[in-house]
Amino acid sequence: MAFAPTGLITLATDFGSVEPYVGIVKARILQRLPVARIVDLAHELPAGRADIAGFWLARAWREFPPGTVHLAVVDPGVGTARGVMLAEAAGQVLLAPDNGLLPEALRGVGDVRWRAMDPELPARLGLAPLSRTFHGRDLFGPLAGMLAAADLPPEAVGAETEPDDPRPLPLPALEAGGVSGEVLVTDRFGNLISNIGEALLAGMHQPVVSVAGLELELRGAYGEVPQAAPVVVVNAFGLLEIALNGGRAADALGLAAGAPVRVRDGFSA
Amino acid sequence: MAFAPTGLITLATDFGSVEPYVGIVKARILQRLPVARIVDLAHELPAGRADIAGFWLARAWREFPPGTVHLAVVDPGVGTARGVMLAEAAGQVLLAPDNGLLPEALRGVGDVRWRAMDPELPARLGLAPLSRTFHGRDLFGPLAGMLAAADLPPEAVGAETEPDDPRPLPLPALEAGGVSGEVLVTDRFGNLISNIGEALLAGMHQPVVSVAGLELELRGAYGEVPQAAPVVVVNAFGLLEIALNGGRAADALGLAAGAPVRVRDGFSA
Amino acid sequence: MAFAPTGLITLATDFGSVEPYVGIVKARILQRLPVARIVDLAHELPAGRADIAGFWLARAWREFPPGTVHLAVVDPGVGTARGVMLAEAAGQVLLAPDNGLLPEALRGVGDVRWRAMDPELPARLGLAPLSRTFHGRDLFGPLAGMLAAADLPPEAVGAETEPDDPRPLPLPALEAGGVSGEVLVTDRFGNLISNIGEALLAGMHQPVVSVAGLELELRGAYGEVPQAAPVVVVNAFGLLEIALNGGRAADALGLAAGAPVRVRDGFSA
Repeated sequence: MAFAPTGLITLATDFGSVEPYVGIVKARILQRLPVARIVDLAHELPAGRADIAGFWLARAWREFPPGTVHLAVVDPGVGTARGVMLAEAAGQVLLAPDNGLLPEALRGVGDVRWRAMDPELPARLGLAPLSRTFHGRDLFGPLAGMLAAADLPPEAVGAETEPDDPRPLPLPALEAGGVSGEVLVTDRFGNLISNIGEALLAGMHQPVVSVAGLELELRGAYGEVPQAAPVVVVNAFGLLEIALNGGRAADALGLAAGAPVRVRDGFSA
Repeated sequence: MAFAPTGLITLATDFGSVEPYVGIVKARILQRLPVARIVDLAHELPAGRADIAGFWLARAWREFPPGTVHLAVVDPGVGTARGVMLAEAAGQVLLAPDNGLLPEALRGVGDVRWRAMDPELPARLGLAPLSRTFHGRDLFGPLAGMLAAADLPPEAVGAETEPDDPRPLPLPALEAGGVSGEVLVTDRFGNLISNIGEALLAGMHQPVVSVAGLELELRGAYGEVPQAAPVVVVNAFGLLEIALNGGRAADALGLAAGAPVRVRDGFSA
Repeated sequence: MAFAPTGLITLATDFGSVEPYVGIVKARILQRLPVARIVDLAHELPAGRADIAGFWLARAWREFPPGTVHLAVVDPGVGTARGVMLAEAAGQVLLAPDNGLLPEALRGVGDVRWRAMDPELPARLGLAPLSRTFHGRDLFGPLAGMLAAADLPPEAVGAETEPDDPRPLPLPALEAGGVSGEVLVTDRFGNLISNIGEALLAGMHQPVVSVAGLELELRGAYGEVPQAAPVVVVNAFGLLEIALNGGRAADALGLAAGAPVRVRDGFSA
């Protein structure tokens, strides 16, 4: 599906809301498209973690209609020679620094067209010279605005390419008698989201999850165990999640990203 | 006043802005109503505290015009059999899980029409199957969008009912010589907001407030006491509030929700 | 350039997002101008720090087009006799409590027209009586809405005046062999932003920065030093900034606002 912009732009950054960094990016978008409709996806993404930003963008971008521009700026390499990546998928455009964010966001998605920004583009568009600490303002905001305004077709951003994926999030592994994975992120509720997708559990009759020295049966909802008890569910994104009913699993279990999670079939005929 | 939607929707959640949960809810709203105007009320509400969410929604919803849809998702019971509640008041619609949030938000409001969502509604609208951890995305966002788009009249959500109020916030009590209440919430400034409304002070000539071992006279504004001194005022919501001029009362006085607050008349003729 | 409102309003506050204070201000704006387009600049500004709010507003307001109304509410003096200040510059309007916020935001800007709000204005507009703890709701939101709706011309707010600047941020000083300044703010990334502007370095061949007992050469970008090494750059706002490549300089160096920063010319012919 070709990209036909609708003026809808989403923003995902690690810019927070203590400083007006996000507002300044929006100003630069509105300079190019005063009628832009801008949806904030998340602005407290972990600082500098392009991989986590990509993980969350993966769970959000498909919710939006064709014609949407998704701008994600988690950019620890700002001011260096790192490039800029654009991806087209399902009639939408995603734009981010070339640091693995978009490959993570689009992992497993078929029919993606990738483009590397021509290094001469900023000068050609009158955006140069760029600062070397805030490309959200100087480069990404203006590009997103122009893409959403149909003033810059995706193909004018740069030549097609294949993406690098320098720092992919770890994948789960099948092992004798089960699946071995790990916690990827702790969310606002202290829920521990693992990299184990429900498809890997498909053959099991009674999945038993080993985490933090506990053995837990898979449940359907947080509320199926007593208050303050740990519980494992398949969450709304299809991933195995360790939670605490009415509390914070991360604190109660002393776990964080990287903690091992194993699943075996507890069924014995 | 009958509800006639205007496309204005407010959101209040405990979803934070580390993950794109709020943005995903907005996407589901925009799928149903691309021209929706969405106002964020608060997204860092205390996790799982439906009562506090209701307290704050009570202070905000009346500010909006008839035709507004207010969606509040603080939902510790997500995925269990808990229901969904809709309320109509003053030509506006409020939608939330059936966990006491809306009864707290509408405490003392006359002429409210309550409805319990028909459990078959999600399937009938093509929303089933729902995930069991994220009804903001799967159920509440779509319903709010359809209500605001006039594609789902409130009466089609479910039959009229009377609300449960499982966990009401504590009310103040009249006692010999005064009023006894407690701190309900600590706000971003460390101000301690009590449940004692100004109406209860109406007969007093010179209210004296006992809190944290201190006896404080009621003042008109924070700045009427020296810097870093404690001060009691009637705040903008008509509630007795303990503050510190230029500082954080919660920290300085070592107080939190539940701390007792008493008021007596210090006037002796 | 005369102010001709376009319906665009920015908000900068210390109201946070735990309580719906910002949402309530927006409701009061929308009451006056239902089609207002509102851009959040920052809502986690340090509580009560009008000077820091002004610093950040200075970096943001010029990004917006003529006709924009900027409302900044950091208001530790709420409810006292403190006034309200309006400034017109570059065809835009800025509105804030009279506490030094706007003089900091407009430091060095030529051709500013300042107005002090007539104390009778709220009563004349039907806004009185005001609460004494939340003028964002009772006064500033409505005024911003009326200004943006062209229902209140700036000249109707009050007479022209000259601004007070009660608590200016410290300025750098030229001293023998260099420049002496200090850290003004620590941002979300732990970057330490100083008050030393790049113009002060113009005559130096090889600027060397002394901070926290270290001597650091000026670099172009964070990524020009190894991971976790300290680095000094001129940031996107033209200010000397001490950072840590891939980390938090504030934590690693144990520095905060007020820490001294000196620059000398390390070049010896």
